[in-house]
Amino acid sequence: MTKPLAPLSALSSIPRDVRCAADYARLAPVFMAPALFAHIDGGSGDDLTAAENLASFGEHAIVPRVLRPVYEGGTACSIAGIARPHPIMLGPVGWQAMMHPDAERASAMAAAAAETCFIASTMSSLTLEDIAGSKGSDRWFQLYMQPDRAVTRDLVRRAEAAGYAALVVTVDAPIQLPSYRALAADYEAPAGPANLRDYPVKAPAEITRGQSKILNGFMRDAPGWHDIAWLAGQTSLPLWIKGIMHADDGREAFANGAAGIVVSNHGGRTLDGAPSSLSRIAAIRAALGDASPILFDGGIRSGTDIFKAIALGADAVLIGRLQAYALAVAGALGVAHAIKLLREELEACMALAGCATLSDVRAAEIVLQGQGRGAKS
Amino acid sequence: MTKPLAPLSALSSIPRDVRCAADYARLAPVFMAPALFAHIDGGSGDDLTAAENLASFGEHAIVPRVLRPVYEGGTACSIAGIARPHPIMLGPVGWQAMMHPDAERASAMAAAAAETCFIASTMSSLTLEDIAGSKGSDRWFQLYMQPDRAVTRDLVRRAEAAGYAALVVTVDAPIQLPSYRALAADYEAPAGPANLRDYPVKAPAEITRGQSKILNGFMRDAPGWHDIAWLAGQTSLPLWIKGIMHADDGREAFANGAAGIVVSNHGGRTLDGAPSSLSRIAAIRAALGDASPILFDGGIRSGTDIFKAIALGADAVLIGRLQAYALAVAGALGVAHAIKLLREELEACMALAGCATLSDVRAAEIVLQGQGRGAKS
Amino acid sequence: MTKPLAPLSALSSIPRDVRCAADYARLAPVFMAPALFAHIDGGSGDDLTAAENLASFGEHAIVPRVLRPVYEGGTACSIAGIARPHPIMLGPVGWQAMMHPDAERASAMAAAAAETCFIASTMSSLTLEDIAGSKGSDRWFQLYMQPDRAVTRDLVRRAEAAGYAALVVTVDAPIQLPSYRALAADYEAPAGPANLRDYPVKAPAEITRGQSKILNGFMRDAPGWHDIAWLAGQTSLPLWIKGIMHADDGREAFANGAAGIVVSNHGGRTLDGAPSSLSRIAAIRAALGDASPILFDGGIRSGTDIFKAIALGADAVLIGRLQAYALAVAGALGVAHAIKLLREELEACMALAGCATLSDVRAAEIVLQGQGRGAKS
Amino acid sequence: MTKPLAPLSALSSIPRDVRCAADYARLAPVFMAPALFAHIDGGSGDDLTAAENLASFGEHAIVPRVLRPVYEGGTACSIAGIARPHPIMLGPVGWQAMMHPDAERASAMAAAAAETCFIASTMSSLTLEDIAGSKGSDRWFQLYMQPDRAVTRDLVRRAEAAGYAALVVTVDAPIQLPSYRALAADYEAPAGPANLRDYPVKAPAEITRGQSKILNGFMRDAPGWHDIAWLAGQTSLPLWIKGIMHADDGREAFANGAAGIVVSNHGGRTLDGAPSSLSRIAAIRAALGDASPILFDGGIRSGTDIFKAIALGADAVLIGRLQAYALAVAGALGVAHAIKLLREELEACMALAGCATLSDVRAAEIVLQGQGRGAKS
Repeated sequence: MTKPLAPLSALSSIPRDVRCAADYARLAPVFMAPALFAHIDGGSGDDLTAAENLASFGEHAIVPRVLRPVYEGGTACSIAGIARPHPIMLGPVGWQAMMHPDAERASAMAAAAAETCFIASTMSSLTLEDIAGSKGSDRWFQLYMQPDRAVTRDLVRRAEAAGYAALVVTVDAPIQLPSYRALAADYEAPAGPANLRDYPVKAPAEITRGQSKILNGFMRDAPGWHDIAWLAGQTSLPLWIKGIMHADDGREAFANGAAGIVVSNHGGRTLDGAPSSLSRIAAIRAALGDASPILFDGGIRSGTDIFKAIALGADAVLIGRLQAYALAVAGALGVAHAIKLLREELEACMALAGCATLSDVRAAEIVLQGQGRGAKS
Repeated sequence: MTKPLAPLSALSSIPRDVRCAADYARLAPVFMAPALFAHIDGGSGDDLTAAENLASFGEHAIVPRVLRPVYEGGTACSIAGIARPHPIMLGPVGWQAMMHPDAERASAMAAAAAETCFIASTMSSLTLEDIAGSKGSDRWFQLYMQPDRAVTRDLVRRAEAAGYAALVVTVDAPIQLPSYRALAADYEAPAGPANLRDYPVKAPAEITRGQSKILNGFMRDAPGWHDIAWLAGQTSLPLWIKGIMHADDGREAFANGAAGIVVSNHGGRTLDGAPSSLSRIAAIRAALGDASPILFDGGIRSGTDIFKAIALGADAVLIGRLQAYALAVAGALGVAHAIKLLREELEACMALAGCATLSDVRAAEIVLQGQGRGAKS
Repeated sequence: MTKPLAPLSALSSIPRDVRCAADYARLAPVFMAPALFAHIDGGSGDDLTAAENLASFGEHAIVPRVLRPVYEGGTACSIAGIARPHPIMLGPVGWQAMMHPDAERASAMAAAAAETCFIASTMSSLTLEDIAGSKGSDRWFQLYMQPDRAVTRDLVRRAEAAGYAALVVTVDAPIQLPSYRALAADYEAPAGPANLRDYPVKAPAEITRGQSKILNGFMRDAPGWHDIAWLAGQTSLPLWIKGIMHADDGREAFANGAAGIVVSNHGGRTLDGAPSSLSRIAAIRAALGDASPILFDGGIRSGTDIFKAIALGADAVLIGRLQAYALAVAGALGVAHAIKLLREELEACMALAGCATLSDVRAAEIVLQGQGRGAKS
Repeated sequence: MTKPLAPLSALSSIPRDVRCAADYARLAPVFMAPALFAHIDGGSGDDLTAAENLASFGEHAIVPRVLRPVYEGGTACSIAGIARPHPIMLGPVGWQAMMHPDAERASAMAAAAAETCFIASTMSSLTLEDIAGSKGSDRWFQLYMQPDRAVTRDLVRRAEAAGYAALVVTVDAPIQLPSYRALAADYEAPAGPANLRDYPVKAPAEITRGQSKILNGFMRDAPGWHDIAWLAGQTSLPLWIKGIMHADDGREAFANGAAGIVVSNHGGRTLDGAPSSLSRIAAIRAALGDASPILFDGGIRSGTDIFKAIALGADAVLIGRLQAYALAVAGALGVAHAIKLLREELEACMALAGCATLSDVRAAEIVLQGQGRGAKS
């Protein structure tokens, strides 16, 4: 009944007609089974938030500046004290074997080639140790906190032992909601991820008659802020809290020991009906001040998108769907190429906006256009 | 010339591809005669307000909140002092025999199964006594005030005798306006409803030459605020006034003895050109204060819609068209299933918005997006 | 080369499927030659303002009010001191023989049947005396001021002699601009109108090399405010100035002897790129005060449109294109029927908005929706 | 592999169905090879800014004014102290041999016929001396500053010698970005332009490993404000700085010796994601004051577009794509005709907006409509 989701054959070279990073999204349907593409391209529910993430970029325009000296500039940045040559990181994407037989190993290699960080998902097709064994060493581990603290602690120890440099704790998906489009395409998620293979499965919380399966059942095992504080005490790795959409939650994250936050709506895969990530970044930055490390995740397809996210408040950006698309199209080569294109597109945008550095980008003027024009920032 | 409107065969089980409450609306055209679907799906005139009701939800987004303790929460609420397990009620829908041979009996049974209230329409296919005889007892009676007060009083006495717990007085439809779409589909309303079968028909008010048939004729028999005050004196049942779109009318309702109001534009079936119900709820709640019981009616298709209506000011919501669609698709089972799906969707939305209770939902942050962005709330 | 524009056969009875006034617009293309329909339906240039006139109504919504006593109400109004049973007037439409063989005589008869005023265009197919000879007597004469004051004076004398009760001086079309759509359809205007048949044609102003044919040529013969003042001195008939879109021009009109103004952009037939008439009425009413007689012209298709125009500031409305459409579809009967439908639609709208009188309508609450929501009124 | 881009046969007379200037854009695809049309019609990247330039005009409406004396008026203007009969100039368009065999000579002749200025591009198909030899003498030279100052100085000397009356220094395109649409159509730019044929090609700046090819390579040769100051000292010709989108850059231009600025986003050919030119003009005029010479470039297709640009702050406008289209359709005749039509359209618009002069246009009221309505000017 279920259609096989084995990846179609990815290319071993960069397709001739990839001229911009977004072309990997354009080509992806050719390289992915329809059910898989429906799943990756969709979000949750009616996929409204996933679409809003993309549309939001078109509502913001960048005011060009001219004749400024930018020739000593560059995209170098410091993310929570760590110097990086550019602000593009590979966000956590689970089950990459669906996209390419080399799975997370390919993306991690691409990250190394493109001088950036690979964030390995708890839900990876390969174990975190397997991923750590591939070329390069700039890696963070994305952690879903487990119902059993011993399991969580063990995952952290394993990540530490394997050399991961930070933990990204995703907090916005305590429950999983389907995309109706993916369901209609008969998408079925793969079996439990390699990282969790050897742990006992905790029995779901029991509910009594009249109780809510979601609120009183699933959510009983969901982590809370005190779990973040506990986790911060278990490891010396910096903690990033991913899935922040409200300034108050950002404040709470730092109060509980976070090193930084990721503004994200999980690519529209959790609450369908959430606003776009881009629409939230400015207010969150304003509330938390210039010094708080803030990453952005949600709909990046081009260098001008990155420019806009940084101008509105982000320090750097994560690439999720586009990573999956490039991986499906051309494996490690595709992912590395997509990052390279994004970086060049960002550099071109900086040049035309008169920005030598990302600090200049932060100060650049963004204006609203089209239907965004009525917005009150 | 008129096409038969006998219901097509409803299913006796839940269709496999119903994954969310809104799927009943999607499937309905398969289970309803085209003329009937045109009537139910349409509103009045060009159906603009009916469409605006739906579109309005897409203009509001819910800001997710994370890591909050919601596991002891639930959807329990108190509607005018009566505890209810969730805020979803079955609004009055007339002539349900058009949708299913079991008519209102099926919907009333579904309400009982789904632990909610069924509001029987004056215009029901079955008499209020017949409906009262079906399983369950949580029922309100929707009352159209009749030109002859003796008839109105008799209807109230009958509702009291049959055990209805409240009266919902619909005040926004003193005249009936056609939907041009329904007319074009040759829809014809069924003959006079069972509840009114045994009353004499009052002769319409006579008008003189030059007078308006509508203003000076039909509207002479339309009720006024003094009739609400009179009615409040005739019964000990709580009165809900349905069809309020302006804060001043809300105030007037409470001043004349109402126990609560229903913000509604009659699903766009009266004044085509009225704003969406959703666009009015915040101002009405603000004007009437937190303690006034306010229900919402107008376009609910999902749990996130319910969340938005409550966050903007409603205490609970009525389900109208969706009830009719689920009834047509799968009878009592379909209606009960639709309510169950809505409740689960609401719970999932609460979990992802960090709301343990409906009071938390009321305090949740709603932001405008898309074309709603220029709105002045 | 030119296609004949003789009217197709109009019906001698009301078509069965006309359920609302707007249906005459829907049916018109069946009863008019394509080139004629392109001309009537179009505006000038790219027809943008003509389209904006219609779209503007959809951006405004009427807040329903309930349980108000409206049964002694009606649509009676006083236009500049003259009592009228309703606020719907037939605006000036030239060359009506293109629409129906009975031409302006049919429309004038319809006006009489529908208890309203017919405004005969200077550009009528029939002479003003011929039109005056038809049944009914409630008529105004629309005057284009002529390059030769003697001709203008003679037209006024003739209108006075024929019993016209007011003059409507159209001032917004000193030059004629084509609709590209009408040109593409090979529309050609008929030969000079009957009213001007017997006057000498004044030679166009000569221009020297380097001068503008438009500004220095055609516009030299265009009237100015001093001509309005002069005209006011030539007749005891009240003068209405038609084509006002700016409050300052409204003030100027009254200062130069006008009895009232018509807010109009000539149905989008002059300056393509002008805003909708509806978007201008509120500011003009606010600037001129409650006592100034102001008519509205521009896109009325329904009773709710009339309600909106009056609520925003108009005293009454003119019907232009819809008159032409109804005339083409069913002659005098069609025009009278269209007015009757509009009046009933207005009455229904008043009933549902709780307005007994047009004064109540003026005070009714209009809210913005859709793309109008960002508007600053 | 590359398709030939030789122009299709241009007409030697004005096509019968050109009724407005914009018709040249409508007809252009018939007269241009698809790849060339894709290039000319596109912008850069996804062509978003190119589209926004056009859409922006539709968001602004012109309020008509009536009965004003305009018959002694005209379109005469003074651009930086030079009297001109109208405000329409031919902006720099490179490689005109792609559009017509007569190339820039045709456009320059058209400018002379239409009493306006031709601005010859550095990237012309013909040398500036060849263009100077054609009929007429009202010419400016568009200068791309060259990496080698000696080359720049030589170009300036040649322009002075050939009688060019001003220099237009384009500063917004230090790097060239492709239009994906043009790439997809296999467009390839012609070989290096005639004007630069005899200069040595400067080797590109070397970059070290880890440096950005764009920021540290190409941009090292890009001019800065000090180069403008230097250039102002090299010539007595007035300098116009083209490509200003921010008021601060406008101030800087005048501070460094500019005689005027051109508000432009290079027709959307540089930073895709820049706002429309029209959306920037009002703020720039407000910041720089009434006396600063400001030209507008970006999407002009009609006389009402010109009116809007001037009303919002421009002194005159440049015609780019429309020049290319008219040239492709009907050579010099087409270009002259397009200018004539634009001028007449502007005159008609002035007549209907009650503006006798361009100073009146500057003071005319522009209102927002449609999606522009939420804009904060």
